[in-house]
Amino acid sequence: MKLADYTELWQSLGLDLEAHDGLLRTLGQAYKEIYLSQKNRPAGMDYFDFVISEIHGLRIRELAEARKEGRMVVGTFCLYVPEELVLALDGIAVGLCAGADVGTEAAEQVLPRNTCALIKSFFGFKLSGLCPYTEVCNLVIGETTCDGKTKAYELFNEYKPTFVIEVPRMKSPAARALWRSELGRLAAKLEELSGQPLTAEKLSAAVRTVNAKRAALHRLNALRQADPAPISGRDALLINQVQFYDDPVRFTEKVNALCDELEERVRQGVGVAPAGTPRVLVSGCPMAAPNWKLPFVVESSGAVIVGEESCVGERGTRHLVSEEGSTVDDILDRLAARYLEIDCAVFTPNTERLDHITEMAKTYAADGVIHYALQFCAPYTIEAARVERALAAQEVPLLRIETDYSMEDMPQLQTRVQAFLEMVRA
Amino acid sequence: MKLADYTELWQSLGLDLEAHDGLLRTLGQAYKEIYLSQKNRPAGMDYFDFVISEIHGLRIRELAEARKEGRMVVGTFCLYVPEELVLALDGIAVGLCAGADVGTEAAEQVLPRNTCALIKSFFGFKLSGLCPYTEVCNLVIGETTCDGKTKAYELFNEYKPTFVIEVPRMKSPAARALWRSELGRLAAKLEELSGQPLTAEKLSAAVRTVNAKRAALHRLNALRQADPAPISGRDALLINQVQFYDDPVRFTEKVNALCDELEERVRQGVGVAPAGTPRVLVSGCPMAAPNWKLPFVVESSGAVIVGEESCVGERGTRHLVSEEGSTVDDILDRLAARYLEIDCAVFTPNTERLDHITEMAKTYAADGVIHYALQFCAPYTIEAARVERALAAQEVPLLRIETDYSMEDMPQLQTRVQAFLEMVRA
Repeated sequence: MKLADYTELWQSLGLDLEAHDGLLRTLGQAYKEIYLSQKNRPAGMDYFDFVISEIHGLRIRELAEARKEGRMVVGTFCLYVPEELVLALDGIAVGLCAGADVGTEAAEQVLPRNTCALIKSFFGFKLSGLCPYTEVCNLVIGETTCDGKTKAYELFNEYKPTFVIEVPRMKSPAARALWRSELGRLAAKLEELSGQPLTAEKLSAAVRTVNAKRAALHRLNALRQADPAPISGRDALLINQVQFYDDPVRFTEKVNALCDELEERVRQGVGVAPAGTPRVLVSGCPMAAPNWKLPFVVESSGAVIVGEESCVGERGTRHLVSEEGSTVDDILDRLAARYLEIDCAVFTPNTERLDHITEMAKTYAADGVIHYALQFCAPYTIEAARVERALAAQEVPLLRIETDYSMEDMPQLQTRVQAFLEMVRA
Repeated sequence: MKLADYTELWQSLGLDLEAHDGLLRTLGQAYKEIYLSQKNRPAGMDYFDFVISEIHGLRIRELAEARKEGRMVVGTFCLYVPEELVLALDGIAVGLCAGADVGTEAAEQVLPRNTCALIKSFFGFKLSGLCPYTEVCNLVIGETTCDGKTKAYELFNEYKPTFVIEVPRMKSPAARALWRSELGRLAAKLEELSGQPLTAEKLSAAVRTVNAKRAALHRLNALRQADPAPISGRDALLINQVQFYDDPVRFTEKVNALCDELEERVRQGVGVAPAGTPRVLVSGCPMAAPNWKLPFVVESSGAVIVGEESCVGERGTRHLVSEEGSTVDDILDRLAARYLEIDCAVFTPNTERLDHITEMAKTYAADGVIHYALQFCAPYTIEAARVERALAAQEVPLLRIETDYSMEDMPQLQTRVQAFLEMVRA
């Protein structure tokens, strides 16, 4: 990673330079071990390797320049914040830093220790001055998905302006009306921040841009149904993670170029692992970059991950927004409907998610499913029981993992995953 | 406690008789130590002692008889379920068992270990066949307050029919509309269950009944502003707990009779502890019966608890329903408005709660506040930071306690509470 070039930029953002250099070194090393050591990677991964190598550099420079041009940069932590609204107002939406065991001690001064790793991580990144995304953005948009985030945003707002929208728990007509009205409130806030009005034309263009991005990711995922799998689960996860940082149009182009290559691989029967390698589906909590722990454990234990039923995966990309609608209100209605299709475990009874997992297990010909939950995440850890039962009914074995971002449980994870894979193979 | 008389009743409800006998013996012993050992108790507590001694006996017989007469008995776990709707349909609303470390092992077979004690307790009571309330009721009404309960109800429904209503996270006009529509949906469900239509006359009468109950509890709480306090915090908590089990009209009568006695005590300067005894306000998570651990620790350490900012306390009783309104819809509007005034920590940003705590600290002349949170309860454990700051601004010291229903941390709690009281006294 290029450490020197951006010192001035990072300084201007108020980062803790020394600690930040240390973080980049650690991540660079981890990336080498987890990603660059893979054999038989598609050539199209070069671009994503480059993006990662510049994730705190070139991309931050682009964002800082956008800010100088008067464009807004908005940080988010959840699929439920519609990127389309930001793009339609010439803004940029980025995911904020999380996914690493960074600043945990500082975060635990503010938050209870029994808070999930994702929340402690985004708080820790901020308190330790290690996230250039948080610093470069004008506003953070939070959402009332889980209790932990809902309450943590109240405190986060004391460090960075945070605007919170309400996500309901059910999908009744009144809950849909609430959600639709929250999108209206968010649109008004973003109009104010950007200093421009939302127009149907621009909103419609933004919908098409984001639809194209999701369609490209969907295409990528569909290619993984092949045996041998043409791309590793690690690489597919990385691409799903990069979507939250990169420019959407550039990103879409690169994903499609990669898919062209993967199509060719599938045609020729080329894979990242031999045909017949055990196929695993991962389902559960989002894995924010650089959270690559479980995929690394699974794929270095002789299996290949063929799908992610996750916010950073199919849960986030499978639904497109209807491109009909000629007024702002019309399009907002369609946006609202699309976003409420996301089957996050905070919803109840959320049977759609159970249906989707069993369907994915079949479509991707998974030999087993690993349910991945962050410790203290009540929605996913509790829903795991119903996931297990739904899969058992289809005779698909499930391994339940509960973990955090530390590396302490690596040996234990390895043992459990290997035992699971042996059982699956038998 | 009378163990013999109700064997047949308990058997008919499918309780685990042996384990249930053991539970009653343990509770009887705890009650003796924590309650009956208190000095200088008001005579009016006799009634509540009697209710507790018959809480799995006489009251269950009443409920079983109501069922035989065709009346519905509805079980709830939260203030957000309006008792008025049940009463208006000639039904009975009761709180279900929780508050004790019972069936935890069984509950942890179904729920993650990192689930709060209240949820594990209500699940454990059901799985161990120890709660006659759960067994005698037709239906449980849940609510989407916290993530833990929202998701646990999905599983609880497999053991007992559970109807869940959505409680929003904010108090916007759309959130109010959602909540109002949920009350309509609940009313329809209860009409169906009871086989009768909701009428304005009966709903209005129910509103007056419940208002009278809350007003009596409010009167009780107000009397505790006196120094010396005329009643212990333990006894006041008990009364607040009994409200969820007893017949509301009988209960109101008895609370008012007790208040007459306490008024006389205040006039004569009689207290449960000498004037000048350190006064503590407890704020935070609800304490379901028989969860008396912290109050016992505090009051056996030389302080008196003068108020509860809790669902089982002022949070649940301070707001009355407007008695205007002549149609069912009118009254439902007023009910909805009243219930949304409850400042549960699941709401965001919930500044009303901070205001209420600081106001209570002043009104009750508290020397210190103990923030009581159940472990793994994200809403209250995270909100505690803002509570601490709000009180610090008023120079009111705060002690943050995070615990569960086990007795293992008693010595540690005692040490921390005693140190806090010494600091407060200094």
